[in-house]
Amino acid sequence: MLDKGKYKVKNNIQLADFNTKEVVEKADKKLKKIRKKLSKIQDTMYAEGKYSMLICLQGMDTSGKDSLIREVFKDVNARGVEVHSFKVPTELELKHDFLWRHYIALPAKGKIGVFNRTHYENVLVTRVHPEYVFGENLPTINTLEDINDDFFHNRMDRINAFEKHIVDSGTIVLKFFLNLSKEEQKSRLLRRLNLPAKNWKFSAGDLKERKLWDKYQFCYQDLLNRTSTENAPWFVIPADDKPTARFILADIVLEELEKYNFKEPSLPAKIQGQVAEFKKQLNNE
Amino acid sequence: MLDKGKYKVKNNIQLADFNTKEVVEKADKKLKKIRKKLSKIQDTMYAEGKYSMLICLQGMDTSGKDSLIREVFKDVNARGVEVHSFKVPTELELKHDFLWRHYIALPAKGKIGVFNRTHYENVLVTRVHPEYVFGENLPTINTLEDINDDFFHNRMDRINAFEKHIVDSGTIVLKFFLNLSKEEQKSRLLRRLNLPAKNWKFSAGDLKERKLWDKYQFCYQDLLNRTSTENAPWFVIPADDKPTARFILADIVLEELEKYNFKEPSLPAKIQGQVAEFKKQLNNE
Repeated sequence: MLDKGKYKVKNNIQLADFNTKEVVEKADKKLKKIRKKLSKIQDTMYAEGKYSMLICLQGMDTSGKDSLIREVFKDVNARGVEVHSFKVPTELELKHDFLWRHYIALPAKGKIGVFNRTHYENVLVTRVHPEYVFGENLPTINTLEDINDDFFHNRMDRINAFEKHIVDSGTIVLKFFLNLSKEEQKSRLLRRLNLPAKNWKFSAGDLKERKLWDKYQFCYQDLLNRTSTENAPWFVIPADDKPTARFILADIVLEELEKYNFKEPSLPAKIQGQVAEFKKQLNNE
Repeated sequence: MLDKGKYKVKNNIQLADFNTKEVVEKADKKLKKIRKKLSKIQDTMYAEGKYSMLICLQGMDTSGKDSLIREVFKDVNARGVEVHSFKVPTELELKHDFLWRHYIALPAKGKIGVFNRTHYENVLVTRVHPEYVFGENLPTINTLEDINDDFFHNRMDRINAFEKHIVDSGTIVLKFFLNLSKEEQKSRLLRRLNLPAKNWKFSAGDLKERKLWDKYQFCYQDLLNRTSTENAPWFVIPADDKPTARFILADIVLEELEKYNFKEPSLPAKIQGQVAEFKKQLNNE
């Protein structure tokens, strides 16, 4: 049994205390088993239609978010999973508050929604590049000095309130930071450049952002500490070994879903009493 | 090699001429192979990001639409598939034109969208039950006499125009009618009533609609003849044997995708010239 407590963000963590290099043996094989269970439990969750689940995925470039989504949800009925990849906001999206585009993408009851990059980019990439905030045309923001720690902490409070609201409405929220080491990112970027089939994924921006590594780590640490709540916790997942990251994440998701004891709905009482009659009707056609 | 031409709707078909009972041997095993290929080709389609695909699924109750979606798209990355199940329109949806809710659910470039029940319900369930049209509050509809064949044929013309527009914009459109026999529906309904794990799917409405079987068949035949076009064809899939239906549909989808010769995008020329420089930067860090 995997000790999952150690990945969960309680209070006042130091990101540097979390391992990036953990390797779980036979993680691929273990993932396969979990996948089957995920598929089953998702079917019941869908049939019951009371809860939804939101999985938030964050991580530096090349941390393996895309392939993790592919592998973890392989066996789940496509009907029950929705993946939303959030990129640079469009003009339309910038004309709304920073949560709007995420709000309208929330999973419906019965479904699992996966956000590949999330609303947390609003306290992350914009904190590393505060000038991006000008694009939002906010009434109270005039100079770079206005986009300070208070500004981002206020956003985190609003994110917490937003998540509390959706949790209270029946959404199960789990948030994962794929914790990659700087060395491993280097070798993955080099591989992207070297492999023709991979190199379309490379962008010159990747190297620019890599130079801001420490600033990103600082911002991640701050947001993890301020937005990991009992109802919408963050988990820091060692991401240098891809099969390990996928397995740990899937295991946490499964364990959470199992708490809910989903049940297929039963036939409404009114109809229940008519079952014999319905069968007769069909048989006497 | 499967002769798929016979499932395609050309002009003036009689629905009764199409087989419901066809059984393809080892369909399960054949589907597995196709699934792997679908997964690969979808990855490339996604990376290329030029085309999207819309798969429309129609069929009588119990024709196996849900489980077909589960089985056919099992190996495709969840990121690349979106399933939309359209039920009775909501109040908000009724306040828009009949294509609106389908329009906003269209797949983005690179993705496969599956409509589980589709915009065709607007010339099907509403044709069987014309009084439903009153819910749309249309300016020119006052009496039941207004909701006549012309009314539905006009809708079909508009559907054809809508589909032409999305095809011209890069959406590959395939439409499937899961052709179930009346006897097979009977035994599936009885199974739903008999199996506790299945019976939540039963609704008394299923029996009412079954009584209108012939009317549905007539409406299907008419819409198939009027809306199967070269660019957005209908296929009539024998659906009494579920593995056979899944295999045939998957095979048609794969064959269509293979025509497009999707390619991973290459690195923009500007960046291509800098690859050596980028590698040096990383290696000299």
